[in-house]
Amino acid sequence: MLYAAILGFGTVGSGVAEVLTMNQKQLAGKAGQPIELKYILDTRDFPDSPFADRIIHDFAIIEQDPQVQLVAECIGGATIAFEFVKRCLQAGKHVATSNKELVATRGHELLEIAKAKNVNFFFEASVGGGIPVLRPLYFDLAANEISQVAGIVNGTTNYILTKMLDEGAAFDDVLREAQAMGYAEANPAADVEGLDACRKVCILSALSFGFHVYPDMVSTEGITRITEADVAVAAAGNMKLKLLGRTLRTEDGRVCAFVSPHFVPGSCQLFHADGVFNALLVRGNAIGEAMFYGPGAGKLPTASAVAGDLADAAWHLTQRRPMNWEDARRDCMLDAADLPLPYVIRTGASQAQVEAALGAARPLGEDGYLLEGAHTRRAIEAAGLNLLAVWPVFR
Amino acid sequence: MLYAAILGFGTVGSGVAEVLTMNQKQLAGKAGQPIELKYILDTRDFPDSPFADRIIHDFAIIEQDPQVQLVAECIGGATIAFEFVKRCLQAGKHVATSNKELVATRGHELLEIAKAKNVNFFFEASVGGGIPVLRPLYFDLAANEISQVAGIVNGTTNYILTKMLDEGAAFDDVLREAQAMGYAEANPAADVEGLDACRKVCILSALSFGFHVYPDMVSTEGITRITEADVAVAAAGNMKLKLLGRTLRTEDGRVCAFVSPHFVPGSCQLFHADGVFNALLVRGNAIGEAMFYGPGAGKLPTASAVAGDLADAAWHLTQRRPMNWEDARRDCMLDAADLPLPYVIRTGASQAQVEAALGAARPLGEDGYLLEGAHTRRAIEAAGLNLLAVWPVFR
Repeated sequence: MLYAAILGFGTVGSGVAEVLTMNQKQLAGKAGQPIELKYILDTRDFPDSPFADRIIHDFAIIEQDPQVQLVAECIGGATIAFEFVKRCLQAGKHVATSNKELVATRGHELLEIAKAKNVNFFFEASVGGGIPVLRPLYFDLAANEISQVAGIVNGTTNYILTKMLDEGAAFDDVLREAQAMGYAEANPAADVEGLDACRKVCILSALSFGFHVYPDMVSTEGITRITEADVAVAAAGNMKLKLLGRTLRTEDGRVCAFVSPHFVPGSCQLFHADGVFNALLVRGNAIGEAMFYGPGAGKLPTASAVAGDLADAAWHLTQRRPMNWEDARRDCMLDAADLPLPYVIRTGASQAQVEAALGAARPLGEDGYLLEGAHTRRAIEAAGLNLLAVWPVFR
Repeated sequence: MLYAAILGFGTVGSGVAEVLTMNQKQLAGKAGQPIELKYILDTRDFPDSPFADRIIHDFAIIEQDPQVQLVAECIGGATIAFEFVKRCLQAGKHVATSNKELVATRGHELLEIAKAKNVNFFFEASVGGGIPVLRPLYFDLAANEISQVAGIVNGTTNYILTKMLDEGAAFDDVLREAQAMGYAEANPAADVEGLDACRKVCILSALSFGFHVYPDMVSTEGITRITEADVAVAAAGNMKLKLLGRTLRTEDGRVCAFVSPHFVPGSCQLFHADGVFNALLVRGNAIGEAMFYGPGAGKLPTASAVAGDLADAAWHLTQRRPMNWEDARRDCMLDAADLPLPYVIRTGASQAQVEAALGAARPLGEDGYLLEGAHTRRAIEAAGLNLLAVWPVFR
């Protein structure tokens, strides 16, 4: 019998408690022994919860209980969560978290402690919610040099963009509706400004390329500037506008990580990932391309990933799995503005003016142009055109 | 340093040799130490191969060399391959294979030997080729009760069906073309009759439900009876005909495993998996639904999965991963003909006749009907209609 504790009894934490209970038998098979939930740490009491008897308010009880070897961090943020995770690892406990902010900002540091203490620090739920993608990327595709990971990693923005396309609606209207439905937060900035996607790109970058990429190293644009006119231009080219997080290695070995709206062609699998779903595409030199699709958020899907982490840690109590990365290599980064890509622009300029400045271009809809070949955003913005929109095409 | 041997230097075997060499650094990071290819067993010589110096003809050399701890079986079939894999496991070596026939017919037996010898027997490449799907299903989704796995698991038939739809062509013509392109074998029976998909369903069943499902326990129909008229009826309902392999647990706890053409609606992700690609959809009580998409065959993608298995085995040399299942439980199976499903039929009968026999039905195209609610194939076939086609709708 192994004992687990959950830090934070919010949506994810209560989901983890539910999954540990509901699927105890399945977990025991893969963990090698049953996992018993011993404590749930929260500042609040939950007298009506079936887990009321497990609620405690003092972190030190967990920290000092040698029986607790597995901890699920579901507090969120990178202040208290960082402190508690660090102390759990230092106390020789294995930790699983769904907290992308924590991993994106302190992942290297925490993995170093985990390594020194010979314990696991897992975070499968931090990218793609319930979708198994980080372990497949890091372990199952071990026989690949990864060249790129690109994906729809934020369900809220994908829901908004899907609605804008389906209903020809304006961003503000769809956002209000999404907030009413519970698909968007009251303060939607982290989603719509791309920060949530940025954190996930940090984690995907580190796993793919071996060094920490901090949020400030990821060029990030959200979806707030996307208008109905942009959506119409995309449709005119049989494309959809999607917010993609991407990290890739250039031919000269630099890493370029960015979050940006993209025009996604109908021939690409990401085109078909609509609504709140996430989809991640991985390219490697042996696999070619694989895609992972599923629920990127939600109580039980996220809990599925966290509890799966606990089972994996339980099997690897004494021989941790070799997941680590180095600290940031800032000189290895390429600014996304300097990455040559296919681009679509919208402009008040004529086709002749566009072609004089940027070479051959195919008109799309009312005022859109698909530029032939590859251009950098920097060069496009320097071309002196009256630009209404500049976003890459995903290929 | 760890030493590996490859059994069989055909397409997959030579791919494994290539990947082990090309991505040695990546593999070493995840394996914990470098993996050196020591022997390649084949009956032939390959004097022009860069691996010519590793070719041997006597299996006993590998079997008796204690330095060789990792073996990739790439011979195929279940006779010599079974003998060699068994002897490798008995000699305490870890084995990875891409051989679905071997796993579908002898998997339980080999896993028992692996367990007794405390070594790993891995077969990620046997389903979905390069796509990481078996480990995600078995380990990463450990916190789920799996209710169903369904997928396009044979690229050859998916290529043929895609062509039939895109070009309105007949099965025989597309098959000839696929043979000329190398996408179909000269003897295409294993693919087009569904046997290859059947073997993959056996493996998915065992991993999902915990007991061996042998090929004779899987109701199997291939694509040879699909006509242009069927494809047209599917299109009339905004659906595509796809060959799906499925295994699911019914509410009363029985397992139903089958391979059949399915009508797949446009709202389903499997609808968008075309050409030679594979896609597998997994449903569980915590994750909801996730999909894995990618190259289901091919030299380097398949080798990616086999080499990834070797890296995982290398990290788990002394503590094997807990992958096992029991022998068949034949009394737990439900015949697919008795599974209630939504169905489309094609018939010379009128709508009135169809509805008199089977209840409400929506006409589709020239002679198709989408039956409302769920029916069993057995009941439909007993209804005395002049049936031209009877296939389920995937939902």
